[in-house]
Amino acid sequence: MNAPTTFEGLEVGYDIPALPGMAEAEIQTPCLVLDLDALERNVKKMGDYAAAHGMRHRVHGKMHKSVDVYWLQEKLGGACGVCCQKVSEAEVFARAGVKDVLVSNQVRDPAKIDRLARMPNLGARTIVCVDDLANVADLSAAAVKHGTQIECLVEIDCGAGRCGVTTTPEVVALAKAIAAAPGLKFAGIQAYQGAMQHMDLYADRKAKLDIAVGMVRDAVDALKAEGIDCDIVGGGGTGSYYFESTSGVYNELQCGSYAFMDADYGRILNEAGTRIDRGEWENALFILTSVMSHAKADKAIVDAGLKAQSVDSGLPVVFGRDDVKYIKCSDEHGVVEDKGGVLKVGDKLRLVPGHCDPTCNVHDWYVGVRGGVVEAVWPVSARGKAY
Amino acid sequence: MNAPTTFEGLEVGYDIPALPGMAEAEIQTPCLVLDLDALERNVKKMGDYAAAHGMRHRVHGKMHKSVDVYWLQEKLGGACGVCCQKVSEAEVFARAGVKDVLVSNQVRDPAKIDRLARMPNLGARTIVCVDDLANVADLSAAAVKHGTQIECLVEIDCGAGRCGVTTTPEVVALAKAIAAAPGLKFAGIQAYQGAMQHMDLYADRKAKLDIAVGMVRDAVDALKAEGIDCDIVGGGGTGSYYFESTSGVYNELQCGSYAFMDADYGRILNEAGTRIDRGEWENALFILTSVMSHAKADKAIVDAGLKAQSVDSGLPVVFGRDDVKYIKCSDEHGVVEDKGGVLKVGDKLRLVPGHCDPTCNVHDWYVGVRGGVVEAVWPVSARGKAY
Repeated sequence: MNAPTTFEGLEVGYDIPALPGMAEAEIQTPCLVLDLDALERNVKKMGDYAAAHGMRHRVHGKMHKSVDVYWLQEKLGGACGVCCQKVSEAEVFARAGVKDVLVSNQVRDPAKIDRLARMPNLGARTIVCVDDLANVADLSAAAVKHGTQIECLVEIDCGAGRCGVTTTPEVVALAKAIAAAPGLKFAGIQAYQGAMQHMDLYADRKAKLDIAVGMVRDAVDALKAEGIDCDIVGGGGTGSYYFESTSGVYNELQCGSYAFMDADYGRILNEAGTRIDRGEWENALFILTSVMSHAKADKAIVDAGLKAQSVDSGLPVVFGRDDVKYIKCSDEHGVVEDKGGVLKVGDKLRLVPGHCDPTCNVHDWYVGVRGGVVEAVWPVSARGKAY
Repeated sequence: MNAPTTFEGLEVGYDIPALPGMAEAEIQTPCLVLDLDALERNVKKMGDYAAAHGMRHRVHGKMHKSVDVYWLQEKLGGACGVCCQKVSEAEVFARAGVKDVLVSNQVRDPAKIDRLARMPNLGARTIVCVDDLANVADLSAAAVKHGTQIECLVEIDCGAGRCGVTTTPEVVALAKAIAAAPGLKFAGIQAYQGAMQHMDLYADRKAKLDIAVGMVRDAVDALKAEGIDCDIVGGGGTGSYYFESTSGVYNELQCGSYAFMDADYGRILNEAGTRIDRGEWENALFILTSVMSHAKADKAIVDAGLKAQSVDSGLPVVFGRDDVKYIKCSDEHGVVEDKGGVLKVGDKLRLVPGHCDPTCNVHDWYVGVRGGVVEAVWPVSARGKAY
C-alpha cells in the first residue's frame, strides 16, 4: 500500500477498511462504500423537493445511523431534524449536537423512559410516539422527575399493522391526556405507512396512502374541533413522499432510503412506470467486495456473505454489470455466476444491497469515495444501538 | 434499577445491555442472552465426544466471534485451537493469546496476506487454506519477507460448491508446491461439506458425507503414495461430526453451532428421527426481546427486528411457548401473534434465532445468565471483523 495504514491507533484491514487519501483499489473488503457525488445529489434533490412543497424534512437516521450523513442532510438538504427508532440511537444524534430528535417509536421500558426524559439536557428537542394511555403517565413522571419536557406524537396505525391506534376517538383521547400531563407537550401525529413503501406499482401505493391520508385528516380535523393543534403531522418515505407532500394535511416528511437507495427499493415504479433507481434516485451505497477464489470456471467466490449484509429483502445486485450475477451466499462467501469467465481473483465488484438499513447496521464504517479516491471514512455512529 | 448502570465508562442501555449482578429482568433489550448452564453442557458434551473418538476439536470461532466463548471451549471442551473465516477475525483470537489459529478460507488480497504472514509474531501457529497455485507464491513471499511460517491446508470442495479444488491430482500438485515453497509448510487437507449440514434427514446427510469422505480418502492416499503426510485432515460441523469422527480419515472437527444452537439447525433430525435440539444440543443462545406495543388485541409488537438478527434462514422461534408466535419483522419491530391476548407491554420473550452466526455478528455483547442473574457480559470480540 502507498497510503498510511494506521490512524489514531486504528489499523487498516483490522479496525477500519480504508483511510482518506487511499486509492479505491486499496480499500479492504468487504466494506460499505458511498459514492459521495451521488449521495450529495440525492440529498439535495429531496431537500429541494421538500422545500418546494412547503414540507419540513425530518430525515430518517435509522437508515444510515450516521451523524456525518445527517450533517450532510442538514447542510445540503435542509433537514429540520432527525428521526430514529430507538432511544440509544436518538442519544447518538443528540450527543453529536443534533437539535431536534424524534424517536418515531414507542418507548415503554422504565430505564429507556428515564433516558429519554434526560435527553433534553443534551440540548435536543425530544419527541416520542405514543399509542397507549398507560404510557402517558410513565413519560410524564420521568419528565417531571428530570425537570424536562418530552413532546409526544400520537401514533396512528394507518396501514403498517404495527404500533399505533386505529380510530380518531383514540387519537383525541391520547392527545388530551398528553396535553394534560405535566412535563409532556402534545406535538401532533405520527402516521407512517410502512407497509406500502415497497409495493411495485404507483397506483397500488397511492391507493394505500389515500386511506392513510383520510385517517390522518379525520384525526387532525377532530383535534382542531377540540381546539388542539398539531405542530407536526409526520410520515412519508421514499416510496410515498409525493403523496404526503401533496396531501394538504402532512407537514413533515421522514424519508431515509432515498439518500442511499437499495436493490429492493430501486425496483418500485414511479408514476411513469420507470424504476425509481433509473433517474429518480441514484445508487450511492455499495458493498465493495473482492473475488477470493475462482477454482470453478463458471463461478467466482467473493468475500461478502451474510456477515456483510442483510438479505431479508433479496440478494444484492452487481452494480453496472450484466455479465455476472450474485446468485447465492453463505456466512462469509458470495457466489457470483460468471458464465463467461470474465472475473479473476482480486477483482472488485460493487454490490447494491438488497436492503440498505439492516445492511448498514452490520458495518462499522462508511468509506466515502470521489473520483477513485477515498475522501472520507465515517463511523456508522449508531451501529448496534438497538436498545 | 438496583444494580449500578455504568462500568468503566460504559452505560447500560447505551453502550451495553447489562452488567454482572443485575437481575435478568433489568437487562436492556433487544440483546443476546446466553444460558451459561446450557452452553457449558453443550461445550463439555462435544469435547467429550471428540476425545472419545480420538478427534481433535478445532472449534469454529466464526460462529460466536468471542474470545471468552473460545476459552470456555478450550477449558471445558478440550479445544485444540480455533478456526475462523477472515484474517481480521483470526487476529482477534491470536491477539487474545489463542495459540493455534486456522483461517479456514482463501486469503488473496496482498494486504491481507501480509497481515497473515505477521500473525505468527503474535505467538499463534498460523494456518490457511489454498485452492490455487498462484496463491502459493504470494503466501511464500510474505512469509519469507516477515521471517515467519504459514502452514497451508489444501482445500477440497467436497460438495459445498464454493472454494476448493475437486480432483486428487490438483490436491497433490498444490501440496507439492506448498511443501517446496520457502516460508510455507504443508499441513494437510481442509474438507468441510457446508452444503449438507442443514439437510433434515440423517440419511441424506450421510449420503453427502460419504462422497466427501471418499474424496478426502483418495487425496490422503495419493499424498501418502508421494511420501506426503497430512498433519490435519479437517472438517465436520454440527450436522455431520459423527460421520467425520468415524470415517477413519478425518482427525480434526470444526464444529460451531452446537455450542449455541439455533432454530434452523435445531430442525434437522438425528439417526433416530428426533430433532437435534430435543436432547442432543440445548438452546443456549437467545435474543431477549420486550413487548413494546399491544395496541391490537391479537398482536404484540416486540423490539427485536432485522437489526437484532439475521432472518436468512427463517424467523426466530419463541422459546418454550406454544401460545404465541413470532410471525413477521421489519427493521426494528417484530410482530408476535398473540391470539389469546396473553402478553402485555413490558413482557420479555426469549427468541431462538433462525441462524446463530450472522445474528451474533449484529450484536456487540453476550449477556451470560445463570439462575436469573447476569453472571457475565462478554464482548462479541470479532464482531464486524469481516476483512
